[in-house]
Amino acid sequence: MTATDTYLLLRAFCDELSRCGLRHACTSPGSRCTPIVLSLVRHPEIRCWSHLDERCGGFFALGAAKASGSPVAVTCTSGTAAANLAPAVTEAYQARVPLIILTADRPAELRDVGAGQTIDQLKIYGAAVKWFFELELADPTEERLRWIRGLACRVYWTTLDGRPGPVHVNVPLRDPLTLSEELPEDRGGRAGGRPWVERIRAAPGSPTGRTRLPARGVVVAGRYERDLELGPAVAMFAEHAGFPLLAAPLSGARRGPAAIAHYDALLRDEALYAQLPPELVIRIGDLPTSKPLRAWLASLRDTPQIALDPEGAWQDPSGALTAVDRGDPASVLAALTPDTPEDPDWLAAWRAADDAAEHVIVQTLGEDLSEPLVARVLAEWLPAEATMFVASSMPIRDVELFCGARELAPRMLSNRGANGIDGTVSSAFGVAAVACGPTVLLTGDVALVHDLAGLLAARRLGLRLVVVLLNNDGGGIFHFLPVADERDAFEEHVATPHGLDFEKAAEMFGCDYAQPGGLRELRTILDDALAAERTTVIEIRTDRAENLALHRRVAAAVQRALANPQGPEAAPRA
Amino acid sequence: MTATDTYLLLRAFCDELSRCGLRHACTSPGSRCTPIVLSLVRHPEIRCWSHLDERCGGFFALGAAKASGSPVAVTCTSGTAAANLAPAVTEAYQARVPLIILTADRPAELRDVGAGQTIDQLKIYGAAVKWFFELELADPTEERLRWIRGLACRVYWTTLDGRPGPVHVNVPLRDPLTLSEELPEDRGGRAGGRPWVERIRAAPGSPTGRTRLPARGVVVAGRYERDLELGPAVAMFAEHAGFPLLAAPLSGARRGPAAIAHYDALLRDEALYAQLPPELVIRIGDLPTSKPLRAWLASLRDTPQIALDPEGAWQDPSGALTAVDRGDPASVLAALTPDTPEDPDWLAAWRAADDAAEHVIVQTLGEDLSEPLVARVLAEWLPAEATMFVASSMPIRDVELFCGARELAPRMLSNRGANGIDGTVSSAFGVAAVACGPTVLLTGDVALVHDLAGLLAARRLGLRLVVVLLNNDGGGIFHFLPVADERDAFEEHVATPHGLDFEKAAEMFGCDYAQPGGLRELRTILDDALAAERTTVIEIRTDRAENLALHRRVAAAVQRALANPQGPEAAPRA
Repeated sequence: MTATDTYLLLRAFCDELSRCGLRHACTSPGSRCTPIVLSLVRHPEIRCWSHLDERCGGFFALGAAKASGSPVAVTCTSGTAAANLAPAVTEAYQARVPLIILTADRPAELRDVGAGQTIDQLKIYGAAVKWFFELELADPTEERLRWIRGLACRVYWTTLDGRPGPVHVNVPLRDPLTLSEELPEDRGGRAGGRPWVERIRAAPGSPTGRTRLPARGVVVAGRYERDLELGPAVAMFAEHAGFPLLAAPLSGARRGPAAIAHYDALLRDEALYAQLPPELVIRIGDLPTSKPLRAWLASLRDTPQIALDPEGAWQDPSGALTAVDRGDPASVLAALTPDTPEDPDWLAAWRAADDAAEHVIVQTLGEDLSEPLVARVLAEWLPAEATMFVASSMPIRDVELFCGARELAPRMLSNRGANGIDGTVSSAFGVAAVACGPTVLLTGDVALVHDLAGLLAARRLGLRLVVVLLNNDGGGIFHFLPVADERDAFEEHVATPHGLDFEKAAEMFGCDYAQPGGLRELRTILDDALAAERTTVIEIRTDRAENLALHRRVAAAVQRALANPQGPEAAPRA
Repeated sequence: MTATDTYLLLRAFCDELSRCGLRHACTSPGSRCTPIVLSLVRHPEIRCWSHLDERCGGFFALGAAKASGSPVAVTCTSGTAAANLAPAVTEAYQARVPLIILTADRPAELRDVGAGQTIDQLKIYGAAVKWFFELELADPTEERLRWIRGLACRVYWTTLDGRPGPVHVNVPLRDPLTLSEELPEDRGGRAGGRPWVERIRAAPGSPTGRTRLPARGVVVAGRYERDLELGPAVAMFAEHAGFPLLAAPLSGARRGPAAIAHYDALLRDEALYAQLPPELVIRIGDLPTSKPLRAWLASLRDTPQIALDPEGAWQDPSGALTAVDRGDPASVLAALTPDTPEDPDWLAAWRAADDAAEHVIVQTLGEDLSEPLVARVLAEWLPAEATMFVASSMPIRDVELFCGARELAPRMLSNRGANGIDGTVSSAFGVAAVACGPTVLLTGDVALVHDLAGLLAARRLGLRLVVVLLNNDGGGIFHFLPVADERDAFEEHVATPHGLDFEKAAEMFGCDYAQPGGLRELRTILDDALAAERTTVIEIRTDRAENLALHRRVAAAVQRALANPQGPEAAPRA
């Protein structure tokens, strides 16, 4: 095996990835990975993004794959470099995002003998990948070049087929790692730029037709990031069926006259939801985060609940589901859609309650900058072509709780496979790398600190992101939990204030920075940032205890309004 | 199971870890981990260190365990938090560092059903831990409390026994996660604070006596961090036997009249080493990094080479070893030590060559601040009670190549299990947390960027570290490799310059900062930093291309001096 042999095989491999559709790859510095990096960089159709930290590279790829709906490759050198990809690989597995992980490794004779940067990389991601393959390279005979072309197709299609997710290919490489001669022209692939093995997807099967719609159904829609058309289709179905649509923002379905945006606030009211018992629950996508929603679904013991779950995601922590339909959700819904609602009062009752909640929320939040208000106005202000990447922890909850329904809302994405705060900045930059419109990250300070060096992408990769930072100097979400009363450990080990000055961070990473004094100024700054050529950090300082109190005030005000529909604050209750 | 039951079991578990010797634990924010965090924090003998980023926490624990020689615990919440510990766990496994990883998890009924922050944590670290245990907690009967006390001892001792390394305990936890009542006093442990199960170590067996010393032997000593007394013992043996001691700084044995510090430079000279063929090679600790040394050992085909390797580390990438002695190295060497050298000329010849190299190195480096000179003077200036943590990549090589032998040298530590640059800052802070004297980190800029947020420990944990930063704006080591000629990808994807201003970084993380203009100023700044109450970043700007040229000049000058021992530069050659 010469270096030429190695490069011939890897070029064929990368060429097939590209023929299948690969357009983006992430690299990180190293020596052993040289043949993989150069093969990717030299492919004219693959754009390579360089990262110093593999953990950032992994999350960047995740964000790009999420936003584009297509697999993205990540390569790294041997050793703990591969272990640094584990968080992104795990999130990709949980969130069902297609990633192709290409780790360089030492060959057999240099393993477990004290050679540098050598760890056991076989199946290093354990159960968090769909497929692992040890890509031992031997002489590039014609048969072997055909084999590796087919293998690349298999790697690519496997990330997408069935339940999408990451595939790990480990590549042992021997010295020399660079070429001493030019490669001959590549004539190995199929004619016309087709992949060696094409993927012909089955048409969606006919819907089973087993579900009969009652008069009073409810649709619950959660994260479903890949199919941009499903959200509007769900909204259309709900409208025609006259079913309230409890849609998390990540579903893309919080729109249309059936959308019930404030289900979290409404479903805290046991009296209300006792009055509105559904006869059927149809669930699409992941289960929304809202605890009251989850508790309510669990309480509906005798109500049929059906999940449209073609990927077998099995989102059902409280064991409430009565059926799982593995059919394509859009097709199933289309087949079920009635001409007109059977009971228009049913949706009207929910609609009235939601409108009342919306009214109270607007009034209670007022115009003072707060975490809920910022989440709300971002979703309201951003154009439809924008993508809003929302960090886990409080931001995703505030977006779910406070954002209203909107027809042309920005696309929302979030790392909700494992719900970690790690890799947030890098994921958002990955989105920005492939998104057509502007990308806005809504994040808390702990998530930003966790991936602070992710901001390097602003200058190194020339990417633009608007970072809206809700800085309450610590983990605000923990104030909502009983642990907040454990005074001996809470601040130091749970809330973990850090006192960082993010203006200095912005300066260090070459980002613009602004701190709006009020709502109107936030709007101006945001508009400027959306038009700017550089990444901007917009910091809003908040207080953890006040934030808790505000959330409680809003919840109480909604409860009062629902209990007292004739009150001056509320819209009429059904 | 009530919360009280959970806490009774975890208190007993943590109490036994403490009785075995646990003194330090790292926490990170989360909800599911609350019972573990509170049980650790509330144990009076365990000091808990809080980290926002689990990756930092893991490496901090690694550094503390390395420097103290005792196991350190790390806990984290469920989800990708656990995946972020993978790099440190992997390094700990490779470098044989005792760590106790305690991951919180969701219980069975909340796994794989869409509950938040839930991933498959069973055996998540794969082959990188010595033992995995799923710690399902049931009612705290007397028998079960005894069982968990014994289990904690087993966890602790397993990290240390045989080949040391990490142990992973996964702890599924059910709500509620906080106590509603005070725990009764703990009377469960053995009397007198003894652990439930003590560990009685076998005395070192008698040395085999199978090795007979020839007149002309060589000792090669590499990383051996745990036993501070072994380095001096090796130096003493080499002196008595009259064997040149080729000792890497991480061996603690680069001292005494037998120490050959510049073996890397000497062994590039084939003519020289053909003149100095050893009759025996004795190897202790890991194999040093030096490529010429490794090549030379591989070339000694007919020379017996014996490794004193009680842990089965099997450090032998070129298949040069002829025997492995599993006995305790100090005992084996003590039994072998002769009264006087059989052939004093043998060591004298090596000594002369090494002195010549030392002389040339001093002359060639001069007094201009350069990467090699800074590595050299740090090891020369720092007091014996200091610990010098050396980053992987160039710094560890410069220390190996350029530092002279010294009797009371600072202790040197480095992450050389997998040789990664990740977690460098956090590892050094972990050392600083337990070391008696000052801790100095010698790092390149890419390693610093990779763990930049590790600097949070300076202010949040009130720790002092002197960071000596060799900033050549990228990965200088890659200039030494053939990939440097691959112009289309080298700068962007391999060298990866980042243009960061580290003065701003220092300011952001509340560290002092200085940039010395020359050698004398470096000394003053270093002395001030060693006496300061805060962490200091001392930045030395260098140039990657000039650094390569300087290394080449030194190597050439040493070669010239050895070839021409009568030359004006060199000490006389044997």
